[in-house]
Amino acid sequence: MQNIAIVLVSGGLDSATALAAARAAGFACCALSFDYGQRHASELQAARRVTAALQCLEHVVSRIDLRVFGGSALTAGIPVPKDRPTAEMSAGIPVTYVPARNTIFLSFALAYAEVKGARDIFIGVNALDYSGYPDCRPEYIQAYERMAGLATRAGVEGNAPLRIHTPLIAMTKAQIIQTAVRLGVDLSQTQSCYDPSPEGLACGHCDSCLLRKKGFAEAGVPDSTRYRQ
Amino acid sequence: MQNIAIVLVSGGLDSATALAAARAAGFACCALSFDYGQRHASELQAARRVTAALQCLEHVVSRIDLRVFGGSALTAGIPVPKDRPTAEMSAGIPVTYVPARNTIFLSFALAYAEVKGARDIFIGVNALDYSGYPDCRPEYIQAYERMAGLATRAGVEGNAPLRIHTPLIAMTKAQIIQTAVRLGVDLSQTQSCYDPSPEGLACGHCDSCLLRKKGFAEAGVPDSTRYRQ
Repeated sequence: MQNIAIVLVSGGLDSATALAAARAAGFACCALSFDYGQRHASELQAARRVTAALQCLEHVVSRIDLRVFGGSALTAGIPVPKDRPTAEMSAGIPVTYVPARNTIFLSFALAYAEVKGARDIFIGVNALDYSGYPDCRPEYIQAYERMAGLATRAGVEGNAPLRIHTPLIAMTKAQIIQTAVRLGVDLSQTQSCYDPSPEGLACGHCDSCLLRKKGFAEAGVPDSTRYRQ
Repeated sequence: MQNIAIVLVSGGLDSATALAAARAAGFACCALSFDYGQRHASELQAARRVTAALQCLEHVVSRIDLRVFGGSALTAGIPVPKDRPTAEMSAGIPVTYVPARNTIFLSFALAYAEVKGARDIFIGVNALDYSGYPDCRPEYIQAYERMAGLATRAGVEGNAPLRIHTPLIAMTKAQIIQTAVRLGVDLSQTQSCYDPSPEGLACGHCDSCLLRKKGFAEAGVPDSTRYRQ
């Protein structure tokens, strides 16, 4: 019998590739997405396409209310920055940072893992093109893993510890795209844009679109993204 | 100006005492409660009474959907055990354990702290009368604090690290009750029962009621709990 892994799937390029990596590593995958009041709700449709195409055992969409905390362009109605040079993107924590988002997402994944008896969680964080998000750094993930090992029934009962897998953490966007293509991910089904049209067409100008475009160009892979223009 | 602390307030005896301890330590308190599909929803009314009486700056109730994960008598419709001897309660992880609950709650507190610029979080966990919950142990809290210090903007920008305060962690229930009385908490406003009536009257027989009753008796404090019978 295959071991089960919990995979955080946002519907973007990175999480789709992390899901494909979990499958390639032999896991049966349970996908977890969040409806957290994000302005780009069409990414949940992308998440459904991706989890269906990559044959997840199940796909849970958990509704959580992050808007009460405000503080981010992705949830609080602050304008998403457009056409920023790459140097500026990596110069600090951007307004698109959602406070403690990965910590919250991983905590739900931990609960889900405990219920499923899974000991493996996959998350598509990336420390290179991470645009200054503190909760994408390797030292953060290691500290999370250590905490998670103490947080649950498995931690008390001395079972195998929980592992947080970050297959993309040291990859460039170009390497992620090449990995996705190699693992058979249909990238046209994914959505990375911070400010898409209601139908899910990408704006082509936010930080996420610019990094993704650059990644396709550097990977030498035709850009299958559906743009608004 | 007073520093702000985020305090997790369930409406029970322990969290009300933790809130009073945060106030006594000089913090201006922002309270955080969760509507997570718990069967004892009347505890949210207790939380509102407690945060009003203890003059919180604000009280946020965040709605989160834990029921998708099932797995606990508090959320999944499994019967709450009644009239168990204390020895049996502490012999393992009970069915009232909610997978990764404190991890999820602390993660929301972390987001709230970041938005408020707070560096202090209070949680009323207790390692003595904790009935076998893995996420009430000191080593878990320490690991969480370490992770939290790396998870946020403050972690990147080198500000003061985040602290998780657990003023009750080494107290018996009797000591918690004595502390609450000393700090002026009106314990009749709190609700600890796992299986209360819709009006919030305590059953008197679940693990939580039994521990609370025993605590009042050992503290030599008249039990002000409103029981069903």
